Amino acid sequence: MKRPTARLLIWCPDARGIIATVTGFLAEHGANVLEADQHSDPDHGAFCMRAEFETDGLDLDRDAFPAAWGPVADRLNMDWRLAWATDRKRMALLVSRQDHCLHDLLLRQRCGEIDVDIPFVISNHDDLRRTVTGYGINFHHLPVTAATRADQERQLLDLLQRERIDVVVLARYMQVLSDAVVDRYPARIINIHHGFLPAFAGAKPYHQAYARGVKIVGATAHYVTAELDAGPIIAQQTTGINHRDTVDDLVRKGRDLERTVLAAAVRLHLDDKVLVHQNKTIVFD
Amino acid sequence: MKRPTARLLIWCPDARGIIATVTGFLAEHGANVLEADQHSDPDHGAFCMRAEFETDGLDLDRDAFPAAWGPVADRLNMDWRLAWATDRKRMALLVSRQDHCLHDLLLRQRCGEIDVDIPFVISNHDDLRRTVTGYGINFHHLPVTAATRADQERQLLDLLQRERIDVVVLARYMQVLSDAVVDRYPARIINIHHGFLPAFAGAKPYHQAYARGVKIVGATAHYVTAELDAGPIIAQQTTGINHRDTVDDLVRKGRDLERTVLAAAVRLHLDDKVLVHQNKTIVFD
Amino acid sequence: MKRPTARLLIWCPDARGIIATVTGFLAEHGANVLEADQHSDPDHGAFCMRAEFETDGLDLDRDAFPAAWGPVADRLNMDWRLAWATDRKRMALLVSRQDHCLHDLLLRQRCGEIDVDIPFVISNHDDLRRTVTGYGINFHHLPVTAATRADQERQLLDLLQRERIDVVVLARYMQVLSDAVVDRYPARIINIHHGFLPAFAGAKPYHQAYARGVKIVGATAHYVTAELDAGPIIAQQTTGINHRDTVDDLVRKGRDLERTVLAAAVRLHLDDKVLVHQNKTIVFD
Amino acid sequence: MKRPTARLLIWCPDARGIIATVTGFLAEHGANVLEADQHSDPDHGAFCMRAEFETDGLDLDRDAFPAAWGPVADRLNMDWRLAWATDRKRMALLVSRQDHCLHDLLLRQRCGEIDVDIPFVISNHDDLRRTVTGYGINFHHLPVTAATRADQERQLLDLLQRERIDVVVLARYMQVLSDAVVDRYPARIINIHHGFLPAFAGAKPYHQAYARGVKIVGATAHYVTAELDAGPIIAQQTTGINHRDTVDDLVRKGRDLERTVLAAAVRLHLDDKVLVHQNKTIVFD
Repeated sequence: MKRPTARLLIWCPDARGIIATVTGFLAEHGANVLEADQHSDPDHGAFCMRAEFETDGLDLDRDAFPAAWGPVADRLNMDWRLAWATDRKRMALLVSRQDHCLHDLLLRQRCGEIDVDIPFVISNHDDLRRTVTGYGINFHHLPVTAATRADQERQLLDLLQRERIDVVVLARYMQVLSDAVVDRYPARIINIHHGFLPAFAGAKPYHQAYARGVKIVGATAHYVTAELDAGPIIAQQTTGINHRDTVDDLVRKGRDLERTVLAAAVRLHLDDKVLVHQNKTIVFD
Repeated sequence: MKRPTARLLIWCPDARGIIATVTGFLAEHGANVLEADQHSDPDHGAFCMRAEFETDGLDLDRDAFPAAWGPVADRLNMDWRLAWATDRKRMALLVSRQDHCLHDLLLRQRCGEIDVDIPFVISNHDDLRRTVTGYGINFHHLPVTAATRADQERQLLDLLQRERIDVVVLARYMQVLSDAVVDRYPARIINIHHGFLPAFAGAKPYHQAYARGVKIVGATAHYVTAELDAGPIIAQQTTGINHRDTVDDLVRKGRDLERTVLAAAVRLHLDDKVLVHQNKTIVFD
Repeated sequence: MKRPTARLLIWCPDARGIIATVTGFLAEHGANVLEADQHSDPDHGAFCMRAEFETDGLDLDRDAFPAAWGPVADRLNMDWRLAWATDRKRMALLVSRQDHCLHDLLLRQRCGEIDVDIPFVISNHDDLRRTVTGYGINFHHLPVTAATRADQERQLLDLLQRERIDVVVLARYMQVLSDAVVDRYPARIINIHHGFLPAFAGAKPYHQAYARGVKIVGATAHYVTAELDAGPIIAQQTTGINHRDTVDDLVRKGRDLERTVLAAAVRLHLDDKVLVHQNKTIVFD
Repeated sequence: MKRPTARLLIWCPDARGIIATVTGFLAEHGANVLEADQHSDPDHGAFCMRAEFETDGLDLDRDAFPAAWGPVADRLNMDWRLAWATDRKRMALLVSRQDHCLHDLLLRQRCGEIDVDIPFVISNHDDLRRTVTGYGINFHHLPVTAATRADQERQLLDLLQRERIDVVVLARYMQVLSDAVVDRYPARIINIHHGFLPAFAGAKPYHQAYARGVKIVGATAHYVTAELDAGPIIAQQTTGINHRDTVDDLVRKGRDLERTVLAAAVRLHLDDKVLVHQNKTIVFD
């Protein structure tokens, strides 16, 4: 049986002794550090760290931790956040008509491979209603046109907030979200792009790949930012193809990539293993 | 001991009975077909085929073959070429300062892994002279500046023609060849690009990859065409990276990809396994 | 829209002109050959071939084909079989308690990625009844103990025969089938082994892999033969692991491999792309 | 320009506060920790750690470090070792007749990819003398028969000791070393096995793989122990094959794997990134 843990994520200017300071603080307060991973980024003179520790012996509770840790962090000019692993995250899925990533995530959740609550699935089409409700999950149909986008996104944001959603996953949601949504969930909306970014951004990446005659196709999971398909990349995967593969074959092979890559990215995010800085990710894997 | 073979490559409008016609012709003339691979391209209504056959029992010699086969091919509107495997191809290597692909190809040739004559290596720098001559291969230093490009390429073409070069390999040759060279060797100049095309075309692909924060880098071997890094792709390979990898690490990991991918492409070309059509390759692998 | 095809699979002593004979016969009878792939096995002086052809223009029906083709095949000492792609195959799934391969195959069937009828799923446990019936597929619970094995397998064989099953897939069925079953379905029972055979045959392969400290784990899809985990291998896949991975992590990573490899093997089998000879497979991919 | 570093490797019973103790000690003595990686092994209740730190500001020299650190380490029941990165390691290569791994390592050393001194190469054959001396490296021919093994290994050990060799690499050395040699260099002799261990241990692994009909082959770099091909695995890699691949093709494809895997293992060892415990490796990569 796993004991409860918390994860401390840190970003600060590089300096001597930070690991000692962090692990020393935790040791002093009775926390058993299970993993401490860190990275120095010479480009920005930055240091970042992720420490996961058991909270059983910790002499600080949720209120006391910031009070005790804050002054230390301030002294080192740290950005930091603390995630209690016992606070199960709440995830919303957005889909359109394709269901392979949807099934994949729901099945992984059901077998315990990803540890998260999924209160609902939203779609701009009604096609997957029965699929979703068959898993015992609520389904919201929010159709959208160019004219109704602002309104639809308001409904979307309402749902996300009402259900206290922590992370939004675009599991092949074929709509571009406006800044109104993106800005509310920085580094908390994960998209799966069915191409090997930065190649083949935008629409119909498998058709683009076929036209160019590449010998490898890929899929990319990334955080959504204002610029389409240009957000920080969390995970990528590729597979070989050849001249016999039609666009349909690329789509089929791509589905397997998309499922695996998206699931990997979601898992990393839920485990608080991803830090974003300057449009790149540090993945403490 | 391998017996002598020849390879017939065909491109024609799709129609019924082509395989039967080709293999029937070969059987009739005493050739034992070892491999016959074909591909129908629905986009262009085209059919292409590669047949490798033992020439021991063949009742046609080099002169007689076109005379006998030509009329059949004409009837089916075929483009075709015949390559006798006993005609060892002649390959020129062009390099600049980096030697990893150079060593790799020369060592593979020496151990018999690629079956080719390499009469000389050309470089725009003199650095690798001793490396090349150490393998018992001639080295030509052809320096180049913007002002002398036309002249340098004339010398280059002279060397290629005098030594009856069949295929030119740019083994990290850091110069762009002008159309004067490219047009003389269509689908016969192979370049290794140290990026996963079409992403990161042009200069410094590893720096581009680092800046974008991708999680996978690649290398691409392709035929050189007039447009930079846009020719038909022969082979690609990728490898995973993470946030700890500096540009130097990408360069190092990339070297291994470049060597493997370039060697694979060269091998396929020498075995007459690559057909080019509409800026894409059919690789009969 | 795809036009109806048939697939001719051939195994015979190597000789000159076989491809010409086969494709000539097909052309003569009006069949348009889409793909013709062949392989010469020097170890056994054998030749094998797979030809897929459109049956639209074929002037032979199901009865006439063997009558016309038989004498030609006999002359060349051929083993052969003809599969009409329009005869949708019938597949039975056997499972125990784990459901990841089950979901995977049923979802792939539902989206048309594998083209097959699945009349029922059999399990030695009752756990997955609702999962299976939720897909609208019949579920048979056939519990088994050492004492009841013979009887259980009789029921199993009854079901397979009554429903005219062509291929049986052990989608993580944790029982060894006796020769009584195996002998009835030679090269028609596909198992997924959660290890990289021949390493880690038998029980608990992930535990074995963990104990040995390997850096890569794999999964293997193979035809079932009398000897446990020793049948002809159809497909294998591997993934990297490291010292941080617990047995649970191997199990999790392995699930993804198992699904992909089993689906690939099933697909190849359904497309009549696998020939078995001397306990090895020729996969015309 | 990289600044000088040292690497502290630790193995001890798991307990709270070890990371804080280690990094605190280093911070206290002015060392800037660049990387600190650790692993808890629940099977053995063990904790291990690797810390790399800059020695510029360190107030302890080679003699003072153990004196200061020893008591802390003793208190925590630690096994530990300290490696100064400025102490360039000395590596001996043992080869037989095949030269691909030899060239690969020597070229990587020459271009600075692996940072090590290679005072000599030893072979039981004389074939590669000119190859080795061409790199400006000494070559020792130590022929061996069953009758002369003890004597040959004495000469071998003499050479290793006289040149203060730190690590021995069997770069396709086709002889089994006796315990007399193995016991002297625990976790310091690296072998490349041309098979995916534990499958295909012993002689002719590619022939074994071919006979079994696997669809993937691999190569394994491991530390040599008394039991043949059973030592702790450092790195493994695999590549796909198919029924067309002859044993010669496996050998050819395998060469690429062997080079890459061996180079990776050597690099990890030289960077003091490998810990051995209970016949498994922890690779701090």
